[in-house]
Amino acid sequence: MTLKHFLTTQDWSRAELDALLAQAAAYKRTRLGSELAGKSIALMFFNPSMRTRTSFELGAHQLGGKAIVLAPGKDAWPIEFDVGTVMDGEAEEHVAEVARVLSRYVDLIAVRAFPKFQDWSIDRQDRVIHAFARHATVPVINMETITHPCQEMAHVMALQERFGTDLRGRKYVLTWTYHPKPLNTAVANSALLIATRYGMDVTLLCPNEGYLLDPRYMDFGRANAAENGGSLTISHDIESAYRGADVVYAKSWGALPFFGRWDQEKAVREASRHFIVDEAKMALTNNGVFSHCLPLRRNIKATDAVMDSPACIAIDEAENRLHVQKAVMAALAGKP
Amino acid sequence: MTLKHFLTTQDWSRAELDALLAQAAAYKRTRLGSELAGKSIALMFFNPSMRTRTSFELGAHQLGGKAIVLAPGKDAWPIEFDVGTVMDGEAEEHVAEVARVLSRYVDLIAVRAFPKFQDWSIDRQDRVIHAFARHATVPVINMETITHPCQEMAHVMALQERFGTDLRGRKYVLTWTYHPKPLNTAVANSALLIATRYGMDVTLLCPNEGYLLDPRYMDFGRANAAENGGSLTISHDIESAYRGADVVYAKSWGALPFFGRWDQEKAVREASRHFIVDEAKMALTNNGVFSHCLPLRRNIKATDAVMDSPACIAIDEAENRLHVQKAVMAALAGKP
Amino acid sequence: MTLKHFLTTQDWSRAELDALLAQAAAYKRTRLGSELAGKSIALMFFNPSMRTRTSFELGAHQLGGKAIVLAPGKDAWPIEFDVGTVMDGEAEEHVAEVARVLSRYVDLIAVRAFPKFQDWSIDRQDRVIHAFARHATVPVINMETITHPCQEMAHVMALQERFGTDLRGRKYVLTWTYHPKPLNTAVANSALLIATRYGMDVTLLCPNEGYLLDPRYMDFGRANAAENGGSLTISHDIESAYRGADVVYAKSWGALPFFGRWDQEKAVREASRHFIVDEAKMALTNNGVFSHCLPLRRNIKATDAVMDSPACIAIDEAENRLHVQKAVMAALAGKP
Repeated sequence: MTLKHFLTTQDWSRAELDALLAQAAAYKRTRLGSELAGKSIALMFFNPSMRTRTSFELGAHQLGGKAIVLAPGKDAWPIEFDVGTVMDGEAEEHVAEVARVLSRYVDLIAVRAFPKFQDWSIDRQDRVIHAFARHATVPVINMETITHPCQEMAHVMALQERFGTDLRGRKYVLTWTYHPKPLNTAVANSALLIATRYGMDVTLLCPNEGYLLDPRYMDFGRANAAENGGSLTISHDIESAYRGADVVYAKSWGALPFFGRWDQEKAVREASRHFIVDEAKMALTNNGVFSHCLPLRRNIKATDAVMDSPACIAIDEAENRLHVQKAVMAALAGKP
Repeated sequence: MTLKHFLTTQDWSRAELDALLAQAAAYKRTRLGSELAGKSIALMFFNPSMRTRTSFELGAHQLGGKAIVLAPGKDAWPIEFDVGTVMDGEAEEHVAEVARVLSRYVDLIAVRAFPKFQDWSIDRQDRVIHAFARHATVPVINMETITHPCQEMAHVMALQERFGTDLRGRKYVLTWTYHPKPLNTAVANSALLIATRYGMDVTLLCPNEGYLLDPRYMDFGRANAAENGGSLTISHDIESAYRGADVVYAKSWGALPFFGRWDQEKAVREASRHFIVDEAKMALTNNGVFSHCLPLRRNIKATDAVMDSPACIAIDEAENRLHVQKAVMAALAGKP
Repeated sequence: MTLKHFLTTQDWSRAELDALLAQAAAYKRTRLGSELAGKSIALMFFNPSMRTRTSFELGAHQLGGKAIVLAPGKDAWPIEFDVGTVMDGEAEEHVAEVARVLSRYVDLIAVRAFPKFQDWSIDRQDRVIHAFARHATVPVINMETITHPCQEMAHVMALQERFGTDLRGRKYVLTWTYHPKPLNTAVANSALLIATRYGMDVTLLCPNEGYLLDPRYMDFGRANAAENGGSLTISHDIESAYRGADVVYAKSWGALPFFGRWDQEKAVREASRHFIVDEAKMALTNNGVFSHCLPLRRNIKATDAVMDSPACIAIDEAENRLHVQKAVMAALAGKP
């Protein structure tokens, strides 16, 4: 029997995802439960977190469980992930031991591990979380690596709260926005996956072809769309992309062709500040909603007016992190 | 209905403060309760903490609640507090989102945010905690900003344990002491507020007029004294200030006229090392008690002999943090 | 009545240690208990931790208690340990206050404080934990200083799981191994103490006399061996040391004669990389088991083949940390 992890929504069937969302809705009505009584989860943070940390730690507690927060390289030992290495560098221990020891202590391991931003051919292998999944003997949950499946679930839950369960036929715009730093594509990849999975007509809006996402996710998006009755379109034209949209989801990311050579990408990025989500653009939509995974830099990615408008469902989406993650933890480790 | 916060004791009536102290005394007798069952609190630490962190985290737990500890800029994202900013600096998200999202997760938000020590005209606005209070939809608790109301309550509780509930007529000396760094005026401001609030005859002892506290707190102190039958006197003479005192409370702080130009203040501060609380000074008192908020540098602010004497109630005061904070949390978020 | 601490196994009788091990075995079968209901423990980490942090925090929780994790100098104030100091350096408070205040809040204090690696004549005094023990009014637990008694208990428990309760007559090799940094002797000291305590025939295998452990621990080892029917032998010959061994326990440490002058030790250390535990060496043993306290650098201290072999019980030993520490906490602070 293979161990069930929550590494990407692509490994879970629509029926399974729908069941998670139904359970999350139940937790939104009734916060406390005992599904994780006597159970525990290790939260491994290789990168900072506010919402993820709070919602996982609190979510485990509200179901009777216990979260242990660890930051390897800061308050815990730095870890090696490659196989066969002569470990004479910085790492003091190997993920094989970390994952196996934690599996003796806890019932779930959750991992946040961003890319290193130097070589996409390496980062796209998502080594850290896959190494945990390979060596752990308990389920592993993705708290954001090169995708962010928990965010996906919170996002689709927030959309269903606005539009009803059936999202098919909704016009969904995933728009790139400017940010002073080249950011992770994780949430963009994830938005593509989940929006196509739920059968929406998805437009990926970005400055030019350099900002397309990794082919793995573009291909998943097209296949999801074909399977679920939606579509995936690429656009570099802001006005036509926004026109008639039901959903605008914003995210900034660094262009993959310049990965690790960010100085060369900077000029293009700087020239595209006008992708900011503002009232004029939102006025083109079909009275659409706006969302973002947070953290969001105001007046860089979206204006104050958009963030503070009734169209903004980013806070709902953030709240839903708590509910969907409880559903994921309960599905993987909860009592039957 | 306005949301009730615990930002400063000045916003709470004497009857309300007395009720908190009574509840704190009850918690000192019986540690465990269920007032916060199913409830949670986010503890936002922008600065280090030992007592505050321990007593809040443990206090919430002892009442059945759950504390989540966050350190923005370290393990969570750096935060912007100004309104309307184009966020192209260090901050990755705005307090508007942080406070609103946390309000969806937890029932209370507590904030420690020290001054930046560069421009008192800005620091005295206490922007961080006020921004949280403005945007949060749950009560906000001050864990020390430019005042330290939880310390005030623990302090007055320790005094009442020695002198009885009615502290009127007690001679109270708030003495500045040397410290190698220019420190926050928060606890000094707070001592002034609470000692005058409880009707004591307060002397603010400091090297010269440059060490007077911000007029806002001097004015509050005078008004409190007038209202509660006490007095507020300024002194630069150590001997007369100590003579006959019932309470000596020590604190170091940087002189406000030199705020941000600390190099220029250093000489004055260095020349005032003799303000250290020692046995000779304590011998001038009316068999008085000594206290301090801690952390305290021994043999800098107070001698070993004073710290280890029966007159020292600093450990009692520190313990009382646990009890008064439980009372505050229960008052703001507890079940009726 | 003297307060009972858990600073070193040498302060505990064999009967007491055996009772801890029996209780640990019980906790391995039944994880949850209520011995620490309403109780709490402060975990003071002056150094990083993964297993210790997780197992103490989780262990306290599983017995109904609450752990508070503190990192002085990082998220809490830096601490002074010397007596009588004029505290005008980095430390903001004295251990006298820290220990006394924490004793008011919690029922147990656990401390991890590694040596400073500059002057062994100072480090060998183990000042930090002794200062906590002197000033605290609750029991203090050693989470690794210059010994690591919790590791000892987990280690002997893992050995008993393989060999049965009576370990007398087993051939036990404590082998030094290479590591790029000069490490703490704590676990080596501890292995010597506990292996001799349980009557095994112990060989300390190291490159040369410079790697002998501090006379305090060598003497304890000899005395323990005499008392418990075992022996303590020193060897610098790998082959004869391994031959017929039932247990190989590996650890790296810096040579004490070069303490603080590590540049001079480096050459000797580098010349001894062949002390790595590999299959050829393990083939010399009596089908022996291999263990290590972790973290372990693979292919530096032990090869992948050894780590992944059935002979390796390091993961069991790590798991046992959870169980033995629960037994220690319950013994010191649990309800009768």
